[in-house]
Amino acid sequence: MYNIGIDLGGTNIAAALVDEQGTIIRKDSVPTLRERDYTAIVKDMAMLALKVIEDEGIKPEDVHSVGIGSPGTPDTEKGLIVYANNLKFNNTPIREEFVKYFDIPVYIENDANAAAYGEFISGVGRKYKDFVAVTLGTGVGGGIIVQENIITGSYHGGAELGHMVIDMNGATCSCGRRGCWEAFSSATALIGKAKEAAAAHPESTLNTLVEGNLENMNAKIPFDAAQAGDVIAQEVIDWYIHHLAVGLVNVINIFQPQAIALGGGVSAQKENLLVPLREKVLTEIYGGADSLKTELLVCELGNDAGIIGAAMLYKMYDK
Amino acid sequence: MYNIGIDLGGTNIAAALVDEQGTIIRKDSVPTLRERDYTAIVKDMAMLALKVIEDEGIKPEDVHSVGIGSPGTPDTEKGLIVYANNLKFNNTPIREEFVKYFDIPVYIENDANAAAYGEFISGVGRKYKDFVAVTLGTGVGGGIIVQENIITGSYHGGAELGHMVIDMNGATCSCGRRGCWEAFSSATALIGKAKEAAAAHPESTLNTLVEGNLENMNAKIPFDAAQAGDVIAQEVIDWYIHHLAVGLVNVINIFQPQAIALGGGVSAQKENLLVPLREKVLTEIYGGADSLKTELLVCELGNDAGIIGAAMLYKMYDK
Repeated sequence: MYNIGIDLGGTNIAAALVDEQGTIIRKDSVPTLRERDYTAIVKDMAMLALKVIEDEGIKPEDVHSVGIGSPGTPDTEKGLIVYANNLKFNNTPIREEFVKYFDIPVYIENDANAAAYGEFISGVGRKYKDFVAVTLGTGVGGGIIVQENIITGSYHGGAELGHMVIDMNGATCSCGRRGCWEAFSSATALIGKAKEAAAAHPESTLNTLVEGNLENMNAKIPFDAAQAGDVIAQEVIDWYIHHLAVGLVNVINIFQPQAIALGGGVSAQKENLLVPLREKVLTEIYGGADSLKTELLVCELGNDAGIIGAAMLYKMYDK
Repeated sequence: MYNIGIDLGGTNIAAALVDEQGTIIRKDSVPTLRERDYTAIVKDMAMLALKVIEDEGIKPEDVHSVGIGSPGTPDTEKGLIVYANNLKFNNTPIREEFVKYFDIPVYIENDANAAAYGEFISGVGRKYKDFVAVTLGTGVGGGIIVQENIITGSYHGGAELGHMVIDMNGATCSCGRRGCWEAFSSATALIGKAKEAAAAHPESTLNTLVEGNLENMNAKIPFDAAQAGDVIAQEVIDWYIHHLAVGLVNVINIFQPQAIALGGGVSAQKENLLVPLREKVLTEIYGGADSLKTELLVCELGNDAGIIGAAMLYKMYDK
């Protein structure tokens, strides 16, 4: 049995044929051309799904379902996208439009949740029933799985872990609140802090690694500089780890998942990130170090997580 | 069909016969005498349950299940209390001991979660599927219901909403972290803040209402003084509402429940609390005022919530 996963992005639509173990068999993509009407975009999604099936030489009737990971807020029951910032979607009937071209069960989920579900089904979360993925990228995104189901709130607008305030007197976040976790723990926040530190400390290795141009700063450089013994970079990393740990311990105190996996740009640091992070989390955990039962890991599937998760959404509905 | 709910407290054991609608038919209690061995305590729980049944003139076989709300961390599957601070419980096999006296399905839950479940089944949460109860008492407790099930974390130590940090540079909490929600939003925190304000401002009505003795301060007095026009008391209330709103918006951003109900001492203020709180929450909510779909309410069942919730636990397992 096969399923199709579709990752609807602002730039590309990607579709993949995925087997029951969550392995991608064949993948293809087309440009989204996101200024178009939704009918044209959804038609391209369906056509791409059919093309992937045909290219692999299987029949549409051997495909069990299609899952779509989309930006924005879905109405999973009605098969709508209620709202998506980057696409002109507003109560857009994705499922109804899709089945005009390919009549099959269609499941819709927010893309961040689909990616967390992908890691849960066939990535780093596959051993667990309760699993949280936290993406450290432009913002801080969350995907929460409790007892094998994605938790998204009653109206699919929850799981906004990045907009949990951890420092209510801190800097203003893009959402309008003060001191959201995202304002400290995104890759954007790390890069901003590293730029500030480099500018204030001309002697720091940070300046060497950006080759004198702060616009070259990325989330890897402060880790590299700290490992090379740069004290200023180490302070940036310590600041970052501290804030990340505070938010993670909040998540642990609320959900006590079996594992939390970090994804996004910063997670490429793997043990450079996880080792000091685990140490900091232990100092914050409720009930002391013995109480920490949540494993801290990094995601495995990279950009494929979303398309795999979308393909596997049927598992939540076929029970 | 009837069920028995047992509320195991540090002072008293209460047991009630509860009907299918979650209404208490008959209730009784005995002292816990908590220094005793667990075998003696559990025996008294079973005897009290049988007494309530007999006193009501029904037969034990007309009772479907017994639910126990206990302090501490339960292992709901094994029927243990893993740990409870106030009782000498340590991996204590409550269910195994109970059925020696009364052979019936026994469900165990943490008392705060049982109380939230009671409000969910037959109190203010009865219209909803996704519901959070937040108790503003000595601490800040939480009970989280998602899709009709209590969420407690993989090892039943989650749902610690009070130990979510909202001000990471703030005052140290009893748990060792800095700036936990509980340190600002418990009744204890409100009383502490009101005492401070009264001491610093001898002219404040707060001092009149405590009759010159700050030890008379309670969670009602600052609300009363503010309503009487006292500016200092109003500042205390504004501070309290602000911190309460920050934590509640975090909960909404994560769970987006259909409703959150406040319980505990402070919730007796009802609309005095809810009206300014709703206003403050609207200024903090992610996505602006239109995004607020979560109703803010106060709990209805008072101290009976725990015993009713315990009696109704079978509903989560009989599906």
